[in-house]
Amino acid sequence: MSYRAPVEEVAFFLKTCTALPLLMEQGLVDLSFDVVDPVLEEAGKFAASVIAPLDKVADKQGCTLKDGTVTTPEGWRAAYEAWTAAGWSSVAAEEEFGGQHLPTSVTSALTEFWNSASPAFGIGGVLTMGAIEALTAHGAPELQQTYLTKMVAGTWTGTMNLTEPQAGSDLAALRAKAVKQADGTYRVFGTKIFISYGEHDIAENIVHLVLARLPDAPAGTRGISLFLVPKVLVNADGSFGERNDVVCAGIEHKLGLHGSPTCTMVFGEKGEGAIGYLVGEENRGLACMFTMMNNARLAVGIQGVAVAERATQRAFAYAKDRRQGKAPGFEGSAPIIAHPDVKRMLLTMRAETDAARAICLKTADALDRAHRLPDPSARAAALAEASLLTPVAKAFSTDIGIEVASTGVQVHGGMGYVEETGAAQHLRDARIFAIYEGTNGIQAIDLVTRKLPQEGGDVVNAVIADYRDIAAEVAALNAPDFGHTGVRLAEAVDALARATRKMLDWLPSDQAKALAGATPYLRLFARAAGGAYLAKVALAAYGERAAGGTDPRLAARIALARFFAENLATEAKGLEEAVTSGANGVLEAEAVLAVA
Amino acid sequence: MSYRAPVEEVAFFLKTCTALPLLMEQGLVDLSFDVVDPVLEEAGKFAASVIAPLDKVADKQGCTLKDGTVTTPEGWRAAYEAWTAAGWSSVAAEEEFGGQHLPTSVTSALTEFWNSASPAFGIGGVLTMGAIEALTAHGAPELQQTYLTKMVAGTWTGTMNLTEPQAGSDLAALRAKAVKQADGTYRVFGTKIFISYGEHDIAENIVHLVLARLPDAPAGTRGISLFLVPKVLVNADGSFGERNDVVCAGIEHKLGLHGSPTCTMVFGEKGEGAIGYLVGEENRGLACMFTMMNNARLAVGIQGVAVAERATQRAFAYAKDRRQGKAPGFEGSAPIIAHPDVKRMLLTMRAETDAARAICLKTADALDRAHRLPDPSARAAALAEASLLTPVAKAFSTDIGIEVASTGVQVHGGMGYVEETGAAQHLRDARIFAIYEGTNGIQAIDLVTRKLPQEGGDVVNAVIADYRDIAAEVAALNAPDFGHTGVRLAEAVDALARATRKMLDWLPSDQAKALAGATPYLRLFARAAGGAYLAKVALAAYGERAAGGTDPRLAARIALARFFAENLATEAKGLEEAVTSGANGVLEAEAVLAVA
Repeated sequence: MSYRAPVEEVAFFLKTCTALPLLMEQGLVDLSFDVVDPVLEEAGKFAASVIAPLDKVADKQGCTLKDGTVTTPEGWRAAYEAWTAAGWSSVAAEEEFGGQHLPTSVTSALTEFWNSASPAFGIGGVLTMGAIEALTAHGAPELQQTYLTKMVAGTWTGTMNLTEPQAGSDLAALRAKAVKQADGTYRVFGTKIFISYGEHDIAENIVHLVLARLPDAPAGTRGISLFLVPKVLVNADGSFGERNDVVCAGIEHKLGLHGSPTCTMVFGEKGEGAIGYLVGEENRGLACMFTMMNNARLAVGIQGVAVAERATQRAFAYAKDRRQGKAPGFEGSAPIIAHPDVKRMLLTMRAETDAARAICLKTADALDRAHRLPDPSARAAALAEASLLTPVAKAFSTDIGIEVASTGVQVHGGMGYVEETGAAQHLRDARIFAIYEGTNGIQAIDLVTRKLPQEGGDVVNAVIADYRDIAAEVAALNAPDFGHTGVRLAEAVDALARATRKMLDWLPSDQAKALAGATPYLRLFARAAGGAYLAKVALAAYGERAAGGTDPRLAARIALARFFAENLATEAKGLEEAVTSGANGVLEAEAVLAVA
Repeated sequence: MSYRAPVEEVAFFLKTCTALPLLMEQGLVDLSFDVVDPVLEEAGKFAASVIAPLDKVADKQGCTLKDGTVTTPEGWRAAYEAWTAAGWSSVAAEEEFGGQHLPTSVTSALTEFWNSASPAFGIGGVLTMGAIEALTAHGAPELQQTYLTKMVAGTWTGTMNLTEPQAGSDLAALRAKAVKQADGTYRVFGTKIFISYGEHDIAENIVHLVLARLPDAPAGTRGISLFLVPKVLVNADGSFGERNDVVCAGIEHKLGLHGSPTCTMVFGEKGEGAIGYLVGEENRGLACMFTMMNNARLAVGIQGVAVAERATQRAFAYAKDRRQGKAPGFEGSAPIIAHPDVKRMLLTMRAETDAARAICLKTADALDRAHRLPDPSARAAALAEASLLTPVAKAFSTDIGIEVASTGVQVHGGMGYVEETGAAQHLRDARIFAIYEGTNGIQAIDLVTRKLPQEGGDVVNAVIADYRDIAAEVAALNAPDFGHTGVRLAEAVDALARATRKMLDWLPSDQAKALAGATPYLRLFARAAGGAYLAKVALAAYGERAAGGTDPRLAARIALARFFAENLATEAKGLEEAVTSGANGVLEAEAVLAVA
């Protein structure tokens, strides 16, 4: 099945549901849709024609490790070179380092396209982009000078080295160490695991960002520093020096994402340590890493959207083609898309995918406002909004990435279970997104314990008020096409509002209850947010149609918002109950754990 | 991680929540728990010690096909021979053919154990058992004579040959044909796909049950006949004759269940047809096949439970061992089981698994009553109850099989994505259960269109009344350990009752709406049923504790029923809304399908 990037869908969202038109109008981005539209179009074509055809082959071949050298799948390097040559590696970075500095809402759409075409390919770009952000924000000028231009051009790639065997979600347990040298450099020692693209053959050099502890560092997360450790050392004139003492000691045999080498990296194995350079200040590494993590979290959410989109396209194509059973209006066997139960599966896939995309693009939009608006308080408010939405974007999108891919297998019936078909690969690929860059449990805890209390709850309450306005607007419109959308959406928003109050009440004194309900709370949040954003899209579509628009997609957007509100947002009440009255049942279930 | 069969859990359920004690007391089964307990115990040991150790190796090796011969994984044949030698292949069959004729509630528990140990191994037994049932019910005496004893002994295995490339869920589209010969035998021609254990090297002969059409047969499902086609022909004296003209032309490369060969079977390739024997009457093959399908559907539900159980055990073991982060009461890093969010994941896994098992065992219990009670009307009522519960048992258990296995991966974090750990295999294996033996969509349609209208709705209403009684009993008890169980359960049952009424209203005149809501309706049914059965278990546990019982599992059963009611049964209201007011949004969403 060939992939078709959802260019029109993204463009419609950017034009009707984000601040991008306003930023353009006010000259806060030096851009117009005359540029953005062709960029989306070209990226979609590149993803579909150059990257997508490699995805299944890469899954089959995987990566191999021999004597510290990783060989990526056939065609991988050529595709990567074509991708960088076309300028796609540089879309997000600052112009100073050769980047195009496009708005995050636009680059997020591009991230989706690459990752729909092949998430194993796309994750490499996600990590390099994160490393670029961290270096841009925290790197010393000479480090930026040496490394950033090359990374932005894609000549060199970047990695994030956080995880150690005993330190996954718990970064406080990190043991890798770094020792300062007389010349101001550091020597880094330790073993890192699960390092995506830690070693590969697609680019000349690899810039590892590594978390490690100084000998005299405080315990816990306040004693972690961030270091840049290049695979090949770079001389002052930019020429390559010696190979640094960092090697790939193993690659994982994984459920999916086979085209992406997941490496165990050993630093300083030879004894004297890998040469590293401090990024930011000593013992402030976690803050630096979070710069890249937040970006990466949104990008991983987009990976979830991306695979969901691909799985949805594949399921629709199959369901239109495959004939089984009778249905009104069809001679002989009907295509299975005509069966109400299959329709429900397909609509669920499409609605969850588009809702997750909307949440991700609204997060990106908040980041754009945070970075581009002139008014400092508006910027701060937008940044707080982005902070709030990021864990929702990451966790919800990756959860539905798995669910949608799984439903895609189901739509294919027995053929879905056969690897040749391709549907199963999406499920295998998507499964990691809920885990890496902070598990979805960690995201839920971050949302509840750190993001809800922002400004005493004002940030979340403003967002909820926005959702309520959208529901009210739909209700006021009272258009038959929207069915019960207004009512169902208002119910979901009310449920979110009540659960939010309960969470804020619990946080100071009863945190365990808040933690016990964090995951259903995040899902509840996404039910209201997804429903609201899809309704916002639908309202815009309704407006265009009323103004004479005839694109059949306008009606589709309204029908989709309705389906989401009536069939998926309805989960909100039950989720609220799980949050507000289910916690004791979790916390008092020690008896179950004791006998397990 | 070693597998431990949930022997005590099953025994407690059989003793407190099924008719088995009554059937024993009244001499309707020739059995006591003095026999059943050791049978469960021994089966659990066999599953854990002989089968379970092969599961991962089999997944890695898979099966190979060369010149029509399938080689199964190392150890597979020896394990199968040990399994049959120990008598495990014969537990369900009639005594007349060498079977032990144990109650279905007991054999279902055994089916769970084999499939927890290895579903790729277990599915072979499931299919042979189905074939035995069909032959027992519909086979002519001479066919039974020749084949059944060997199949019951496990010397020969059985298959179900339904699916063809153009006929998956739609059996009316079958094209395989059969031509009657002068000697009363038939010649069978055609290609069947997705035939589990269609060819293998673990037993001497394979007895294929094949659906095919006679030349003059009516179109559609009323023109399908069932044939027995042995791999090796059997002479009148029971000795082997020639090889029949049926060959394995290919095996599938699947997402999981690698130890189970999934074959493309070609009948009559040489031109004269494979020799076959009619089972039952001409053109009545579908009815015969449904005998084996219903049994197999329950068994596949149990496969879902089985893999969920294994995944749950693995996740608990990991969560007790893996240390990350701080938690009250732990020096240094705490085991992740101490974190409320992880607790919720583990409790969800355990609760869904036990609820699904309860639904399956209650289905089996209804079958036992249908076959063993003396009163014909009680038997008929029990059979109708089993018919009603079978699609719920199949679809819900296999849905949660996937969900629980996926959550199991999540509990393991990054390690869950590495194949070596074993968690990912459960997800890969479980994914097929929702598809084979009738997709879960087909189950939901069967439930709504064929099972709800039984006796004008009396059958379903009686079951709902039973659930309501359980909720009322919990509420009346008013014991603090149960939390809000009574209220939440009553709400779920009320939601089910309302949705059921709506479905029954729609069926005669508005079937598309009923079909559009079938899947959420089935889930709603399982939310009420699972909650009620777990509460029934909890009430029994409460009673034992009140009578002085000190087993810590008693408290665990109460806590689990509470968790389910307060955190999972709460989905009921939203599901009801999707069923009762979401259908239009499905049926009127043509605009979405049109632009896809």
